[in-house]
Amino acid sequence: MENTILIPEIRELISNNDTRALQELFESEHPVRIAEWLSEFEPEEIRRALSVLPPQHQASVLINMDEDLQVDVVMTLSRGEASRLFTAMPHDDRADLFQLLSDEQQEELLPSLAHAEREDIRRLASYPEGSTGSVMTSDYVALPPDITAGEALNRMRLQAPDKETIYYAYVIDQNRKLIGFLSLKDLILAKPHTKIEDLMHREVICSRVADDQEETARKIQKYNLIAIPVINGGDALVGIVTHDDALDIITQEHTEDMEKFMAIAGSHESAAYMKTSAWEHFKNRGVWVFVLAILGLISGMIVQQFEDMLVQFAILVAFMPMLAAAGGNTGSQSASLIVRALALDEVEPGDIFKILLKEFKVALLLGLLLGAMAFGRVFLLGGKTTIPYGYTMEMVGIAIAVALGLQVLSATLFGAVLPLIAAKMKWDPAVVASPALTTIVDITGLLIYFTTVTLILGL
Amino acid sequence: MENTILIPEIRELISNNDTRALQELFESEHPVRIAEWLSEFEPEEIRRALSVLPPQHQASVLINMDEDLQVDVVMTLSRGEASRLFTAMPHDDRADLFQLLSDEQQEELLPSLAHAEREDIRRLASYPEGSTGSVMTSDYVALPPDITAGEALNRMRLQAPDKETIYYAYVIDQNRKLIGFLSLKDLILAKPHTKIEDLMHREVICSRVADDQEETARKIQKYNLIAIPVINGGDALVGIVTHDDALDIITQEHTEDMEKFMAIAGSHESAAYMKTSAWEHFKNRGVWVFVLAILGLISGMIVQQFEDMLVQFAILVAFMPMLAAAGGNTGSQSASLIVRALALDEVEPGDIFKILLKEFKVALLLGLLLGAMAFGRVFLLGGKTTIPYGYTMEMVGIAIAVALGLQVLSATLFGAVLPLIAAKMKWDPAVVASPALTTIVDITGLLIYFTTVTLILGL
Repeated sequence: MENTILIPEIRELISNNDTRALQELFESEHPVRIAEWLSEFEPEEIRRALSVLPPQHQASVLINMDEDLQVDVVMTLSRGEASRLFTAMPHDDRADLFQLLSDEQQEELLPSLAHAEREDIRRLASYPEGSTGSVMTSDYVALPPDITAGEALNRMRLQAPDKETIYYAYVIDQNRKLIGFLSLKDLILAKPHTKIEDLMHREVICSRVADDQEETARKIQKYNLIAIPVINGGDALVGIVTHDDALDIITQEHTEDMEKFMAIAGSHESAAYMKTSAWEHFKNRGVWVFVLAILGLISGMIVQQFEDMLVQFAILVAFMPMLAAAGGNTGSQSASLIVRALALDEVEPGDIFKILLKEFKVALLLGLLLGAMAFGRVFLLGGKTTIPYGYTMEMVGIAIAVALGLQVLSATLFGAVLPLIAAKMKWDPAVVASPALTTIVDITGLLIYFTTVTLILGL
Repeated sequence: MENTILIPEIRELISNNDTRALQELFESEHPVRIAEWLSEFEPEEIRRALSVLPPQHQASVLINMDEDLQVDVVMTLSRGEASRLFTAMPHDDRADLFQLLSDEQQEELLPSLAHAEREDIRRLASYPEGSTGSVMTSDYVALPPDITAGEALNRMRLQAPDKETIYYAYVIDQNRKLIGFLSLKDLILAKPHTKIEDLMHREVICSRVADDQEETARKIQKYNLIAIPVINGGDALVGIVTHDDALDIITQEHTEDMEKFMAIAGSHESAAYMKTSAWEHFKNRGVWVFVLAILGLISGMIVQQFEDMLVQFAILVAFMPMLAAAGGNTGSQSASLIVRALALDEVEPGDIFKILLKEFKVALLLGLLLGAMAFGRVFLLGGKTTIPYGYTMEMVGIAIAVALGLQVLSATLFGAVLPLIAAKMKWDPAVVASPALTTIVDITGLLIYFTTVTLILGL
C-alpha cells in the first residue's frame, strides 16, 4: 500500500473528530482505497470515520472491507445508523453481510429495516451456495415496454443512485417476465419519443437462478456483458449478475480448481491462506494425504512381493525413483491440460478418442525419450553394480527402458482419461487431483516395472 | 451449441443469396452467436453472409471468430470491403488482426487504410506482448475540461458508435495529460450547464503502458471498473483496457499459472489444447520431463550408494514409494497454496516467517500422522520380511517413522519457501512447478531417509 503514510494522519483526524478534514480527504478517493485505509483501525474508529460520509458512500466503503470487519463495524452502529446503511447498500452485499450476522444480531437489526428490505434479504439469502441466485443482486433497472425513451431516461436518472448498474435496463411485462433489454447507450442515442418496445433487443442472453455461478460468469465473459439478467422458473426477472462479480467468481473457481487438483479438501470458499488456522489447514490437507498414504501402502506391498528379485538385481531399486517421478510428471501434465481445457469448454468428454490419439502420440515420444535415457544410464554407468551370472547389462538396460517407456505411456493416458471420465459423470474434473493420479501411477508403474522386467529377463 | 439446427438453413440462405432473410435472422442476434454459426462455413461463404450486415455489425461478428478464420475471411474481401471493415473494427482487435496477416497481406491492405488508422495500428502493435499497451484500445471518449455536461453528452452521442465504451469519459488537457474522468451516469445525473472540470473525479485509477497486463486486470477487478485508462511515460492518455479484456487476461493468466505449475513449457498464450500439434505438445512437456529425469538420476545414484544396506534391510525398499509420495504430496500442497496466495496478493515475500511458522505447525501434524502410519505398518505387517540378527522390528519401525516425519516436514517447508524466494527474486512463483518440487523432495527425501535410518539403527 502506497498510502500507509496517511494512516497516522487519519488516526489523528478521527481522534480530533475533525469531520471537515476527513470529508475532504475521502471526497475524491475511491471507496476501495478508503476501505483499505480504514481496515487498519478499530471498529469504533471506523464507525466514527464513516459517519462523516453520506450513507451511500458509507455503504460503498464498507462492502470493500473484509467480511468479518464489516460485521464488527455494523455491531458498533445505532439502530438508526444501521438501518440507513442497510438501505443504501447494494442488495447482494447486504444479503451476504446479513447472513454473516449471528441470530441475535439479525433479530436486533430486523425491526429497523423496512418490510421490502427484509423480504429482499430473505429472498436473496435463500439460494443455495454456488448458484447464480446466491450471487445476483436485485437492484437493477426494470422498465415497462410501453413508455418512451425519454421517459425511460428520466426514470433511470431518478433511480440511478440506488442501482448497481444503470448501463443496462431490462424490459418486463405485467408478470415481470423478461421480454427485452436496452443499454443506456441505446437510450441516449434514441429519439426521445421512440417507444421502448420498438427500441429494445428481444434476444436476451440470460441465466437462471439455479444455474451454476461459474456458468453465468462464463456467459458474461463470452458475450462481453456488463451485467446478465437472471430469471426464475417462471421466466420472471429476479436479479442481475454484474461484470465485477464475474471476475470474482472466475478467480474463486480457479483457486478452487487449483486446490482440488492439489488434493486440498475444505470449502475452497475464501482463499484466505493467512486467516485459516494451522489446524484447519491440517484437516484440509491431511484428509487426502492420509488417504493417499493408505493407497501408497499398496505400492509397498507390491515391492515386498518382489523382494527376492530386488535383492538379486539391486540396480532395479536405483531406478524406482525415476520410474515414479516420470509417471507422476507426465500424468500430471496431461491431466492438468485436460482439466483446464474442460474448464474453458475447449474439449468435452465426447472428444475422448481425438484426445487419446493426440496423447498417445505425445506419450510415445516422451516414452521413447525417457526410455532411451534410462537405457543409456544403465549401460554406461551401471558398471559398479553386480548382476547374477547369466544376465548381461544390455538385457537389464533394455528391460528397464521398456518398462519406463510403458510407464510414461500409461501414466499420460491415465492423466488424460480420468478427468474426461469425471466430466462425463458430471463430477468436477479437478477431483482427479494430481497427487491422487501420482499415487495411482505409482502403483500401476510398479506393476508394469516388475512385470516387464520379469518377462524380459525371463525370471 | 443449441442452435446447430440453424446451420443448414443458413447455408441455404447464403447459396440462394437471400439477403433479406439473412438480415432478419441476424438482426436481433448477439454477434457472438452469429460468429459461432458462421464459423462452420468456408471463408467465402462467411464473406457473403457478412455482406448483408452494416460494417459496424460485420466487425462485431468477425472479432468473435477464431483468429485464423478472421485472417481467412479478410483475405476474401475486396480492398474497399476490407477498408470499410477495418475502419469499423474496435482498435485493439484491429491491431491484433493486422499483426496476424503476412507481410504481403499487410502491404496489400495498407494503401486502403486512412493515414490515422495506419498510425493507430502501428502504435498499438508496437507494445511488447504481455504489457498493458498490447491489450489496450485507442477508441475511448476523451473530453476537454472546459465544456459543459450537456455538450459532453452531445459529443458522446455522436461518437458512441465508434467507441469501445461510452460508459466512462476521460478528461484531458491540451497536452493530452489525463486530469480526470466521468461516468456516463455522472453525466446524465448532472445539470446540463455544469462544467466538466467541476463534475469530474480527479483521483483517477490508471495504468501505464509498460505495466504487466495482469496487474492492470487485477486493478480493474479490485476497483470494480468497466474500463481503466492507460497513460504513457509523459502521463498522456493513450488508451483504455475494458472489463471484458480483464476477464480474458485473468483467464489466460490462470491457464498460464496452472501450466507452469505443472511444468509445461511453451508460450502459454492461447490455451488451445486441440489446436496444438502432438509434436508441439511433446516439445512443451518434454523439456521439463527431460530435465527432471536428469535430476531424477541423482536419486538413483543415492540409492546405489546404499545398495548394501538395502540388500540387508529389504523392508526399507518397500517404504521408498510411500516416502516419495508423502514428500511430493505435502510439498505440492503447500507450494500451490502459497503460489495462489501470492497471485491473489494475500501474502508477500516479507511474510515468510509468519508463513513458515504456520507451515511448520501444519507439517508437524502431517508428519506425526504419516510417521505413526508408517510405524504401525512396519510393526504390524512387517512380519514376513527378514532383518539381520541383532535388530528388532521396533527399531526399524521407529527409524522409518522418524524419517517419514522429517521428510514431510522438510517437503512442506520447501514447498512454502521456494515460491516465496521466487517472488522475492521477481520471478513468477509458479515456476516452482509441482513436478520440479517433487523431484527435489525425492532427492532430499532419500538423503533424509538413509541418513536417519543409518543413525538410528547405528549402521
